[in-house]
Amino acid sequence: MARIVQKYGGTSVGDVERIKKVAERIKASRDEGNELVVVVSARAGVTNELIARAKALCAEPSDRELDQLLAIGEQETIALTAMALHGVGVDAVSYTGAQAGIFTDAVHTKAKIKTINAQPLEKDLKAGRVVIVAGFQGINDDGQITTLGRGGSDLTAIALAAAVKADKCEIYTDVDGVYTADPRVVKNARKLNEISYDEMLELASSGSKVMQSRSVEFAKKYGVVFEVRSSFNHNPGTTVKEEVEYMEKVVVRGVAVDKDQAKVIVSNILDKPGSAAKVFRALADANVVVDMIVQNVGRHGIANLTFTVPQTDTGKAQKALVPVLDEVGGGQVAIHEHIAKLSVVGVGMKTHSGVAASLFQALANANINIELISTSEIKISVVIDQDRAEEAARVAHAAFSLDQA
Amino acid sequence: MARIVQKYGGTSVGDVERIKKVAERIKASRDEGNELVVVVSARAGVTNELIARAKALCAEPSDRELDQLLAIGEQETIALTAMALHGVGVDAVSYTGAQAGIFTDAVHTKAKIKTINAQPLEKDLKAGRVVIVAGFQGINDDGQITTLGRGGSDLTAIALAAAVKADKCEIYTDVDGVYTADPRVVKNARKLNEISYDEMLELASSGSKVMQSRSVEFAKKYGVVFEVRSSFNHNPGTTVKEEVEYMEKVVVRGVAVDKDQAKVIVSNILDKPGSAAKVFRALADANVVVDMIVQNVGRHGIANLTFTVPQTDTGKAQKALVPVLDEVGGGQVAIHEHIAKLSVVGVGMKTHSGVAASLFQALANANINIELISTSEIKISVVIDQDRAEEAARVAHAAFSLDQA
Repeated sequence: MARIVQKYGGTSVGDVERIKKVAERIKASRDEGNELVVVVSARAGVTNELIARAKALCAEPSDRELDQLLAIGEQETIALTAMALHGVGVDAVSYTGAQAGIFTDAVHTKAKIKTINAQPLEKDLKAGRVVIVAGFQGINDDGQITTLGRGGSDLTAIALAAAVKADKCEIYTDVDGVYTADPRVVKNARKLNEISYDEMLELASSGSKVMQSRSVEFAKKYGVVFEVRSSFNHNPGTTVKEEVEYMEKVVVRGVAVDKDQAKVIVSNILDKPGSAAKVFRALADANVVVDMIVQNVGRHGIANLTFTVPQTDTGKAQKALVPVLDEVGGGQVAIHEHIAKLSVVGVGMKTHSGVAASLFQALANANINIELISTSEIKISVVIDQDRAEEAARVAHAAFSLDQA
Repeated sequence: MARIVQKYGGTSVGDVERIKKVAERIKASRDEGNELVVVVSARAGVTNELIARAKALCAEPSDRELDQLLAIGEQETIALTAMALHGVGVDAVSYTGAQAGIFTDAVHTKAKIKTINAQPLEKDLKAGRVVIVAGFQGINDDGQITTLGRGGSDLTAIALAAAVKADKCEIYTDVDGVYTADPRVVKNARKLNEISYDEMLELASSGSKVMQSRSVEFAKKYGVVFEVRSSFNHNPGTTVKEEVEYMEKVVVRGVAVDKDQAKVIVSNILDKPGSAAKVFRALADANVVVDMIVQNVGRHGIANLTFTVPQTDTGKAQKALVPVLDEVGGGQVAIHEHIAKLSVVGVGMKTHSGVAASLFQALANANINIELISTSEIKISVVIDQDRAEEAARVAHAAFSLDQA
């Protein structure tokens, strides 16, 4: 008997028939004698429907009321999932975030979990009931409903797994696990049996959409081992866990492509101390997250700063930069949205040299130009022309023989 | 400046456009300087949709999970109504039943309100905010969500009006108020300006669908004066309040027809002490509510018992009666569903005689046969053939000149 936290995403509970399938899967695990806490998201589409209604009534709905509204999505699925379990003879009870004792800070629409009081839930577990918990939501100290923002249901599952000391956490989604590359782009991409937290984090920040970084960070911090797998089949998924020595034998674990970045070039500024600081302070004050940064110093003490920002933030970035240009000796801002970031990730890079050279050579052989380069201990990222992104992913995947286990 | 509780039913908040209209109405009252607590129901149709989904998953959904599910209907409308108010520049904040401190007993799907802790709500009122409260729902001592059953949102409004000592409670619905008869049946039915709690109660139990009895009972108990009016126009509605002397000048306030009753005849039982008790004990044990009762004693110590029960309960009634028949000396059970109950109601009956005679004469003149009669201090009810029900309502309405103020 194990204690397992399972999490089912919005497509897995998308309608009554799918909820029935989820109930069967839960029942099968229950019949094996496991204790189960099940976290469910809102039905796919519900959140967008609710936001559309909200915006029809108020151009900028208040975050507090938005949370009050959006929380009903999961409250529907917890009750329906509990009923589906009753329908197949499994004792089950549903919990809203508040009822499950998920206490958060007061930052509506992107709250952070502070503590979980799992006592009431433990009582039901001990009574042999499957406990169904609403993902994505919590309650603050004032009794206000909060939501956790994007990827919030994964976070709920991982935080609950830590709180109830689960033996295992299973994240059910609409993909089979984590792949060496996006299988829609790279045909011979291979599903990974396991991956380290750090690799998963680098992939998440590099455009892989399997999971949000903060859920992985939370899992890493509390040592929650979790498996990403599909709710539509019974294939084993990918286990995400602390790095172990044998993982380092593999130089590159995977390849990711991010097309949602834009390249910003601030050119012809004075190359003197403090110029770069002023530029990035202005961006930080405007809440623009900057990713790759390169500074070129040209002739006559003139420098160019190049960096990437999320495409959705280019307007904010431009606005923030205009007043700074005078302070740094004039200059221009140019924005290129038609780029892509290609990243290769692997803990083996720590102990293997020549990874960057191999990547650059492979891209050069394919005549793909590199515009920017940045590296971390376990990742190399390059910015390239967006039109060549898929090809570059295939080239990198082949260069490191990722199709072979 | 007055403190007002307003309640808007499901059709009044049926979609985004109607919610906007409700927001305008609230704003108008706010602009007059009133303090407002607004109770809203779920959008019309949502509750049935949710129940359909529940039943697709489980033939008999648990009451606890049903409450967890149904409560989202109002949680949606409170948030949307608050947003709609923000959209027109009115400060507003939404409260679920739990947040509004509406504590109930633990009887899921038909909970009773025990206490209301209006303190948090008072704080927002004092800060000048319109407070939007979810109708129909509460929380029990264990933190479980409960719902109040049919007419629950009216009850929430009236209970809140008592708790916050409101000057006025306005129940907005899709009719203009309480009429002397159903205007769809009696063309010259007249809207009443006011009516006493007792008259309203008798009408509610006689087939008038304007409001459930228990909300009126609650209002009577706590002396909450309320007005029933339409959210689709600005006509004054009907004020329901404690009986005052001048009300007794009107002998008959209104006429109601109930077609949802069935007549049960238990015939040929022994006319000895305890027979009737056994019959009605069996029905009570089966949770069948019995309304009109008549006993005829025939020859040779043989009696017939005739009474009415809700049509939905005839199966239960028959099942409950079978084992009793032997105990009361044999006999048969016959059920007639094709009946209607016609009632005339008025506090003036207490001091005026001849009302029954006038009613019977009017029906006789129209050749409408009376099958059963029952009376209370302020009501006379007769059972007639269902096919003559509308005609009988018009005849009674005319007999007491109810079209004239």
